[in-house]
Amino acid sequence: MEGVPAERSQRLSRAAAQRLSLYLRCVDDWTTDGEKVSSSRIAEAVGVSDAQVRRDLAALGHLGQRGVGYDARELASAIRTALGINRQWRAVLVGVGNLGRALLRYQGFRAQGFRIVGLFDSDPSKVGQEVEGLTVEAVSTLPTRLNELQAELGVLTVPGETAHSVAEALVAAGVRGILNFAPVVLKLPRRVRLVTVDLAIQLEQLAFQVQHGEAATRATDEE
Amino acid sequence: MEGVPAERSQRLSRAAAQRLSLYLRCVDDWTTDGEKVSSSRIAEAVGVSDAQVRRDLAALGHLGQRGVGYDARELASAIRTALGINRQWRAVLVGVGNLGRALLRYQGFRAQGFRIVGLFDSDPSKVGQEVEGLTVEAVSTLPTRLNELQAELGVLTVPGETAHSVAEALVAAGVRGILNFAPVVLKLPRRVRLVTVDLAIQLEQLAFQVQHGEAATRATDEE
Repeated sequence: MEGVPAERSQRLSRAAAQRLSLYLRCVDDWTTDGEKVSSSRIAEAVGVSDAQVRRDLAALGHLGQRGVGYDARELASAIRTALGINRQWRAVLVGVGNLGRALLRYQGFRAQGFRIVGLFDSDPSKVGQEVEGLTVEAVSTLPTRLNELQAELGVLTVPGETAHSVAEALVAAGVRGILNFAPVVLKLPRRVRLVTVDLAIQLEQLAFQVQHGEAATRATDEE
Repeated sequence: MEGVPAERSQRLSRAAAQRLSLYLRCVDDWTTDGEKVSSSRIAEAVGVSDAQVRRDLAALGHLGQRGVGYDARELASAIRTALGINRQWRAVLVGVGNLGRALLRYQGFRAQGFRIVGLFDSDPSKVGQEVEGLTVEAVSTLPTRLNELQAELGVLTVPGETAHSVAEALVAAGVRGILNFAPVVLKLPRRVRLVTVDLAIQLEQLAFQVQHGEAATRATDEE
C-alpha cells in the first residue's frame, strides 16, 4: 500500500511490531465510534508512554494531524499493512489435543485474517475424525496437502516429545512460519520463521507485577 | 536475596522482565552443563543484542566476571529473584473447557513454580467433575475457597461473554493477579494485576516475520 513504503516497515523491530499489535486491538474497537483517536488514548489503553505511541505511529508514514488525532479506520489499515496482515493467511494446525481444539475455536484468529484450513495428527486413531468442520489428516500427508491447501503457516500444538519431528515434517512440506506451543526450543532453517508461545512466561510476568505492585505499572516500556 | 536489592529490581520495566523470562529459559537449560555462560551466548539464543543482555543482567547486581562469564546456576537464581518467582505461586483456574484442560496439563507451569490448586466453572454440569486430580467447584464458592486454597492468582479461561463477571468474582474473592485468556479487555481495580494473553497477537507476529523475512531477524529489540 502506498502509505507505508516497504523499506520503512522493514525497519520495524520485533518490539515495535508487538506494540503495533496491541495498538491495533484498541483501534479496531474504536472504529465504530467514527471518532478521531489520540495517541494519548492509545497510550493509556495499552499502558505505554504517549511519546512511544507517537514515535511508533510516526514510523508508519504520514497519518493524523497535529491536534486532531488519527482517523481510527485509516490507522487500523496502516498498522495492518505494516504488520503484513492486510491479507489472509492460511495455516494448518498439527496436534488435535485440548490446546489444538481450543485454538480452532478461538475467535480472535479469524477476526485478524488467519484461517486454519487443515488439521493433522500423528495419532492414527485421530485421523479421520471431524473437528470444527475439518477432517483430521495424517502428518505423513503434509508434503502434498500443505501445497493443495495453499497454507503458508503451521500451528504446532503437539507434546514436546513429538514437536521436533513434526516441525521437520512441516519444514520439509514447505511451510514459511511455525507458531510453536510445545515447550521445546526448535532449531529451524533460517528461511522458516518461528514464534514460540511459552505460556509459563505469561504467568511469570503476572507474578512479577503482583510482586512489585505499583512500581511495575509505572515503568514504561520504551525502546 | 542479598544479591538483588528490592529497590533495584523494582525499577525493572515490563519489557526488561519479559526479556529476563526468556534468558531464564536458556540459562535453565544450561545449568546442567556446569559451564560459564556468556552474554553473547544468551543474546544469540534469545535473539537480542549482546549489549542489551549485558545491560539487563547488570541491573541484577554484581554477577559474572569480565572475560569469564556468568555461572549458570547463580544467574538463574538471580533472575528468579528479580522476577519474584523464587517462591511458589498458587493459582486457581476458572473455566474448565479445552484451553483450561490444556493449561492444567501444561508442564511448564509447575516447572516454574506455579501450582494450580483449584478448578472452578460456572456451568453446573461441570461442577463435581474430576479433572487432572482436582474436583471442579462452583464459581459462587470462590469467596471462601480462594482463601482456603491460599491461592493468590487466577487463570481465566472462560468465553468472552462470561469473562467480566468471573473476573469480578475473582477480584471480590481477593485475588492479587489474573492471567486472562478471554479475548476481552477487562477493567480491574488498580490493586489487582492483569496479564492478558491474546493468542492472535502471536500469529500476527509470525506473519510479520514471514512477511518481512530477514529484515525482521536483524532488527534488535533494544530499549
